[in-house]
Amino acid sequence: MASPVLDALQWRYACKVFDPAREIPAETWSELEQSLVLTPSSFGLQPWKFLVVRDRDLRESLVPLAYQQRQVADCSHLLVLAVPKAMEEAHIDANIARMVEVRGGTADALAGFRKMVCGFRDNLSARDGALEQWAKLQAYLALGQFMLAAALHGVDTCPMEGFNAGKFDAALGLTERGLTTAVLCPAGYRSPDDRYAGLPKVRFEAGDVVEHR
Amino acid sequence: MASPVLDALQWRYACKVFDPAREIPAETWSELEQSLVLTPSSFGLQPWKFLVVRDRDLRESLVPLAYQQRQVADCSHLLVLAVPKAMEEAHIDANIARMVEVRGGTADALAGFRKMVCGFRDNLSARDGALEQWAKLQAYLALGQFMLAAALHGVDTCPMEGFNAGKFDAALGLTERGLTTAVLCPAGYRSPDDRYAGLPKVRFEAGDVVEHR
Repeated sequence: MASPVLDALQWRYACKVFDPAREIPAETWSELEQSLVLTPSSFGLQPWKFLVVRDRDLRESLVPLAYQQRQVADCSHLLVLAVPKAMEEAHIDANIARMVEVRGGTADALAGFRKMVCGFRDNLSARDGALEQWAKLQAYLALGQFMLAAALHGVDTCPMEGFNAGKFDAALGLTERGLTTAVLCPAGYRSPDDRYAGLPKVRFEAGDVVEHR
Repeated sequence: MASPVLDALQWRYACKVFDPAREIPAETWSELEQSLVLTPSSFGLQPWKFLVVRDRDLRESLVPLAYQQRQVADCSHLLVLAVPKAMEEAHIDANIARMVEVRGGTADALAGFRKMVCGFRDNLSARDGALEQWAKLQAYLALGQFMLAAALHGVDTCPMEGFNAGKFDAALGLTERGLTTAVLCPAGYRSPDDRYAGLPKVRFEAGDVVEHR
């Protein structure tokens, strides 16, 4: 039986060489952006900023900060998933204000929810790096959803952890905003020169990673 | 223009009440399992075990360990995403053996790759909890991909961080295997009683989370 999801997951791979001449159509990218915005997150807190870097000069300047991996420059759209290093109560209140805006009701009626979320935040904030780490988990969830969405649209991606986060943060003006680069995902179209595109996919046998109870 | 991905993301929500009488058909679940196996990961290391818990008694016993959230018992299939707390070189060698099995060639030809991955592992292992944390990021990527795949199949899910990991590890026999529970994802079908199903989705405005450079 045909399965678009499995077909897309078999088709996709971590693209090593993008075709710099090919652009993702605006309508397709708009859908992918909307899918990013719709990503679920813990308590609905959406602890992220999604940077879409298209400026060619800026992207060329990022290549040395990504260990010379040219995907950041040669892709069509460079997605940078950034997360906050800390979370102010103002962020929680902005989320509650948005809940009221979308669903009606009052912020007062959400006081119990607010108290729970603030307690969650306080708990994370008390441990060094824990809030940033939690936010990164949410960003990776967004990444997993994004890559499948992209593949279903025939868009190639390459998840990249190999970069100097401090230098990326500085280059993108994130440092002074209390944000840091969690992970990168260049998106675009594979080059016919990418020999990795044709290699069979390597995964452990299902029996080695899936267990039934 | 119709977008199956956006339709699925608008349709999905964090299901609070599953219909315990409804089961995911075997063929659908098989596809979702295959999609889990196909999840990309850093260096292709697949640092995870996906537990599919169907036993009713076991799942009832997990409810108190998940702060009385009945989704773990009332869903059709409880997916537990578990990760290793440490990684032996044997795991890296198993991955390389699988590469040779699938793609041909020899392990010797992958000596450079092996050295790089071992260095990566050594670096993570030197910092307390860093390898587990890295593995959790990969598990969340799997979770994001899984939830979109499920939604595209009309299957409801609920990502859950609210559980006692130590007690889950003990109940599922993970502790002695050096594994720990990263995150839960009950899957099945929403109950008509779940009032959350009808609520408008709350997300920040695209302009607040997506930035263009």
